Order: sequence, then structure tokens, then C-alpha cells
Amino acid sequence: MKSIKIKEIKEHLNEEVLLQGWVRNFRKASSKLRFVIFRDGTGELQAVASKPDMGAENFAKVKDLTIEASVKITGIPQKHPHKEGVYEFHLRDVEIISSSPDYPIGKKEHGPDFLLSVRHLWLRSPRQAAALKIRHTVYFAICEYLNDHDFYRFDSPILTPNASEGTTTLFEVPYFDLGSAFLSQSGQLYLEAGIMSLGRVYDFGPVFRAEKSKTRKHLTEFWMMDAEAAFVEHRENLQIQEDLIRFVIRSVIAKNLPELQLLERDIARLKKADAPFKCCTHREAIDFLKGKGVDIGYEDDFGAPEEELITTDSDVPVFIEKWPKSIKSFYMKRDPENADLVLGADLIAPEGFGEIIGGSQREDDYEILKNRILAEGYDLENYEWFLDLRKYGSVPHSGFGIGLERLIQWMSGIRHIREVIPFPRMINRIYP
Amino acid sequence: MKSIKIKEIKEHLNEEVLLQGWVRNFRKASSKLRFVIFRDGTGELQAVASKPDMGAENFAKVKDLTIEASVKITGIPQKHPHKEGVYEFHLRDVEIISSSPDYPIGKKEHGPDFLLSVRHLWLRSPRQAAALKIRHTVYFAICEYLNDHDFYRFDSPILTPNASEGTTTLFEVPYFDLGSAFLSQSGQLYLEAGIMSLGRVYDFGPVFRAEKSKTRKHLTEFWMMDAEAAFVEHRENLQIQEDLIRFVIRSVIAKNLPELQLLERDIARLKKADAPFKCCTHREAIDFLKGKGVDIGYEDDFGAPEEELITTDSDVPVFIEKWPKSIKSFYMKRDPENADLVLGADLIAPEGFGEIIGGSQREDDYEILKNRILAEGYDLENYEWFLDLRKYGSVPHSGFGIGLERLIQWMSGIRHIREVIPFPRMINRIYP
Repeated sequence: MKSIKIKEIKEHLNEEVLLQGWVRNFRKASSKLRFVIFRDGTGELQAVASKPDMGAENFAKVKDLTIEASVKITGIPQKHPHKEGVYEFHLRDVEIISSSPDYPIGKKEHGPDFLLSVRHLWLRSPRQAAALKIRHTVYFAICEYLNDHDFYRFDSPILTPNASEGTTTLFEVPYFDLGSAFLSQSGQLYLEAGIMSLGRVYDFGPVFRAEKSKTRKHLTEFWMMDAEAAFVEHRENLQIQEDLIRFVIRSVIAKNLPELQLLERDIARLKKADAPFKCCTHREAIDFLKGKGVDIGYEDDFGAPEEELITTDSDVPVFIEKWPKSIKSFYMKRDPENADLVLGADLIAPEGFGEIIGGSQREDDYEILKNRILAEGYDLENYEWFLDLRKYGSVPHSGFGIGLERLIQWMSGIRHIREVIPFPRMINRIYP
Repeated sequence: MKSIKIKEIKEHLNEEVLLQGWVRNFRKASSKLRFVIFRDGTGELQAVASKPDMGAENFAKVKDLTIEASVKITGIPQKHPHKEGVYEFHLRDVEIISSSPDYPIGKKEHGPDFLLSVRHLWLRSPRQAAALKIRHTVYFAICEYLNDHDFYRFDSPILTPNASEGTTTLFEVPYFDLGSAFLSQSGQLYLEAGIMSLGRVYDFGPVFRAEKSKTRKHLTEFWMMDAEAAFVEHRENLQIQEDLIRFVIRSVIAKNLPELQLLERDIARLKKADAPFKCCTHREAIDFLKGKGVDIGYEDDFGAPEEELITTDSDVPVFIEKWPKSIKSFYMKRDPENADLVLGADLIAPEGFGEIIGGSQREDDYEILKNRILAEGYDLENYEWFLDLRKYGSVPHSGFGIGLERLIQWMSGIRHIREVIPFPRMINRIYP
């Protein structure tokens, strides 16, 4: 008898096959009829267990099934009598591989603390599995777009001697006789070395922030894609970001419709975001917020409520560009039209999902960059190599970073970031 | 005038175009003729600078070029008069974007310490760029194979509360009020939770070993792919590994021929490895080594010289399977035919490149696994969640891990591991 996967079911109609997987759920219809939902990672399937068809002995085994027991089942896949594109599995026999007594996640509501403490089991729940399948798609949609546009993957180091984004939120690691290393918060600076060799590069790995924030958008360990391109200036940088995000939207809709439906994502709204993005300056955004009665100044950053307000009336993401240099990183290039501004932009997703990209053209002038580093009070010694990139064949270049989990939150509509990464790390959570 | 990339050159023959990139090298042929090699990340190009063609003023600018200066060049691409598939660029004008005085890497031989101290510049050298392009291919060939075979990407955490491979080589990180976290050495245990949800999963990220080894095969931070699959047993596990590695070989040969040639890789030998792999038991391997006069016992692991001997006469990689349980990890499943052995296998690459994969079927029995953990002296509390996976719907399952850098060493023929990762981290090296 052929052993198949649930996703192959429609190629084996009316043929006796073997499936291996887990019991998602079951329901007693009558003393002679039960329905069991099986899953195997490639899909889910409703099996019909009929006592007259199976015989009393095999039917008795169906009664012993428990939620999350692992099983081998044999039977015959058939088209659902009424529902187009739906298949049923007519059970012949069931063999329990391993039981699952008192599976701790039940139908009742559990609090997040309990669910996080059994994250290794919670992962099996339909919403969690759906989120992780969308994560897979988003990850590779980003890679596919970049690979198709001359970007090489260039893994920046995690253990670093210095910080690119300030020093208060760093995890410190004792490193042999060399003192301390710090866990990377962004690979960007390293990518700027990479472009001088390969033209366009990106990394896509874990980054770390020892932030004491405990919100639905914060993890201490999360995944970040940093891209960097030589000879790309501010405006083209935004265009690459827009094309990339729109490609991700289309990929998720094409590949994860069942998951989006299960998560009750408003797919029409997601589709609407696949249109030309809007762009305004930081100053215009502040003026808009002031008009809405927000108490905010021209040198202020935005919080979540402001980001939400800015996109309230927009179907598409909004770039906010040209920020005051006082609130942005030292490596951003100054706006040639106004030395107080930098050619940076944040991309704010609609529907209240907030910032999904931060990027900028980079300062490519040796003297200006050196003075920016000194003005920040950083130790010049740590940045000698970074300054070298402006000493030997400097070129105009730009880049941007995408927080993977925040992008998945938007794509999936999942409100809390802890549900879009397999094992979330938070200020109070390191286990399992 | 159209701005193009070097890789597009053959679509623009006899048309005046603009290129942006860096000066790789130059050569004076006569007082009126110079050759300049340009590169832009997408390729390299020889430009012909002829004083009669360019005029004296523009020709003078060519004389000012230095190695690694960044430039805009205009000119006309043409077919090489004699060499098939080779293109020349007839220079019209040159504009220096940024000079590169006293570029520190010259034509003379530099020692590895110096080159590592300028890794941010060394990356531009032809061999280094070639290695990183092969790295890109190997990374995505692994992903492509797995994605096409029902594996979902499942990012395991880096910050972990416990160790999967002993505790002497862990990097320790203070973690808020929770005490210490440890940098992951392998995501495998987490993947075993993932398969219970998604069937087949893999991770592919940085792992860390605080090993004091200083060899050409050791990094403290390297990239590892861990794959895990439900309902896959020992023999099928080896087949998946073989198919995957052979797919990687074909991908590298298909996509990186120029890089392999530049690195003087013996491509014929690489091609020969794309054939059915060999397999022997650990005991057979020991017998073979004893026959060669090696002083080794039946409970011993192999070192690099032994691995090299084992594959001396083999064109293809060799699996060494069924290891004594005393020298392998606690989670490996015992051989049903011999309780002293485990169903683990290492894959040894030919040509002296050593181990590239370690894998095994996993212990899926709750009691046996619990006793193995206790016998190792590990704290059971740290493994409660891992044991849960055997309590609730346990299934036979297997997995394996590939050290990315070691696989790239073999594919590229590069002898030292420090050259196949952008910024190598070693016991004495954290900068840049």
C-alpha cells in the first residue's frame, strides 16, 4: 500500500493509501459514525469512520484516539459529495504510534503565560502553524526579490566589537582574552564593506536588543534583513523597498491563502496595499499630526499612536523621509538641500502595524562621517575600518533594514509578535 | 546615455554606455595605450584606453587612476577580436568618483594576520569575492532542495537556557533577571518541536562554539543548517542528505564556473562526487584504519588525519554510520540490533575536506531518552519540554546538520575556513 502525504491526496482518489500524522480533533456523530481531523504538516484532512464500513474491531480503535496522538491510518480518499475541492478520507484502519494522554492544550482559553510555557506544544495549534507557514513565505519572498535584483547574501557577524545603534541595549558576551563582544543589533556597517566587493549585498539573521520594553511589538531576539547597494541614491532606495514589499504581499497572497483565511486576515485590505506607496517628509508628517491635535515637535520621533494616525486614511504604506539629523543615526547622509536633515526614510505599514522598514542613503564623505562619529561621542578606534570604506574608492550608496517579525505581523494580521517566531525571547522569557 | 552593469555588456555591443565601479588593476602597454580592469560586483571587464581614440585630455585622466578608485566610465563594448565570449570596453572617458590613495593591499604577498586586520578591504580581492559568490549559491541550493521537499524554514532561537552538546564550549550572556542565557550551538532540539507541527523543518543561522581550537577548520561563530523530519528513519535520512549534497554540487558547478576556475578548483573531481555515496559502519572504518597501521580503538572518534585516510580512495563522500553510543549525543536513537550503538552517521567529504554533515535518527521513546539525559548528568529540568515531545504523539524522526563553511570549503577548494565567511570570528579575532 502506498504511503502518501495529505497534500497528495487528490492524486490518489479511490485508492487505498497509508497516511501518517497526528489527530487534530474528533467528533462523535452517532454510535456508528465518527469524524476525525488528521494533520501531517503538509495539510489537514477529515476522515470518516463508519462502523459498518470498518468493522467493529477497527471502529473500536477510533474511539481510543486522543488529541495529538500520532497515528498511521489507512483508507480511501474520495471527493467530498457536495463541496468542490474538498476531500474526505474513508477510514479502513487506525494504528496508534504513540498516545497523547492529557494533552495540556485544550479547547478552553489559555492565558499567554501558560501558552508560552508550552510553546513547544502550542506550535501545533492551527493559528501558530499558519503563522509559521506565512513566515516561511515572507522570508523567501524577500530573498527571491533580492536575489533576482543582483543582491548577494552576505552574512554579517553576530559577535561584534562595537555598536551601530548606541550602547544601552547591548547584550555583552565575555570573549576569550579579547575582553567583551556584543551581540549584533544590525549588520549594516559590515554590509557597507560588502558592497565594495559585490556591488549589492544583504544579510538576514538574528539581531538582539537588550531592551526592557514589554510590548506586543518587542522581542529581545528577532530576525532582520539588511540590504545595501552601491550606486543607489535616496530616491532609488525607496523604489527598491516599495517593489520588494509589494512582491512580498503578492507572494503571501499567492502561497498562503488557506493560512490567511484561517487567521481571518482581511485579504482585500492586504491586496489594496499592493499599489504605489505614499511619501511625505518628516516635517509634513509632524504638521499633519499637529493638525490632528497631537502635541509633538519638529525634532520628535513617532510612537506607535502617531504611526497609526499617519496611515489612518491610507490603503498603502507611507514613507516618511528627510528626518532631523538629531534623531537619526550618524551614518545617514545629509540632505544636500538642508544640512539639518538626513536622507533617511521609515516605511509605515497601514492598519496600525507601524514601522516595517528603516533605511537611508549613507554618508560617503570621509570627513563628514568622521565628524559625525566624534559628535556622537563614539570611540573613533572602533570605526577606523568603517571610515576606511570612505578612504578607498567611496561611492554613493544606500540601504535599508526590514524587521522580519513586524512584516509578518502585518502580512498575517497577527496582533502579538510572540506568535510569529518559533520560540520568542522576551525580557521575562527564555524557556523553552 | 544608458547606465548599465558589466553583466549586461553583451546586450549593448557597439553602443555608448556608462558603467560605475572600481579599478581592479591597470597596465601600461605603451605611451598611447593602457589596459584597465574594472569591476562592479556583477562582473569584471577589460577596458582599452587608446590615446588616439580618447584624445589627450581624457587619456591623461586614465593615468591618474589608482587601484580601488571608484569611477564612472563611458565607452563602447565590443566583442574581443580573437576570444569567443570575451568583451572589451573601448574607453571614451573616465570620471573618478573617489580616489584610493595608498590602498593597503598590494600585489606583494601579505600574511594572514594583516589580511584579517583589513578584512573589510580584503573582501574585494578576486579570490575572496569568488568565495562569497559560491557561499551565496551553496546557501540557497540547500534552501531550494529543502523547500522543494516539504521542509519549512523554522528559525530556532540563539539565546537558549540550556546546551545540546555539552557545556564547556558555551558563550554565556547575562539575561535580565533570569540569570544567564547561552548562545546556541545547534537548533536541533527546537526543530524536533517544529516537526510535530509542520512535519519537516530546518533552520539556517549562526551558531557559536567557545572552543579554544585554532585550526584551519575552526570558527567561534559559523553558520549551520539543521534539518529535521517526522516519519523519516535512519536509512531515508542518509538518502535525503545524499540527494541534498549532490544537488548542491550541481548548483555550484552550474552557477559558479568562473569562480571555481579563478580559485583553481579541480572541477572534474567535484563532478565525480555527484554519484552514489559510500557507507560503512564506524566499526568497519576502525578496522580499515587499523589495517593502515593507525593506533585507534573501537570506541574512538576520528580526527582530521583519520577522516582523510577513510576517503583517500573514494571519489564520493562516505557515510560512517552506527557509532558507539559512548561517543555520540544522548538524543540519538539506539540501534535496535545492538543497544551499544546509535543510528547516527557522519558524512565525510573526499579530498581531505573532512566531516560536512552529522546526523541521526532521534530517540523517540520517553523512558529511554529520560535515562540517557540522567546518565549524561544533565539537569532534567532543562529538558522537560524536550521530553514532552515524546509524551504527546511521539513519532519516529531523524535529522542532520550541515556546517555551511565546511561545505563551502569543499565546494570551493579553499583550504582555510576564514576565507569563506565575510567576517571570521576566531579565538584571537573579533575586529573588524
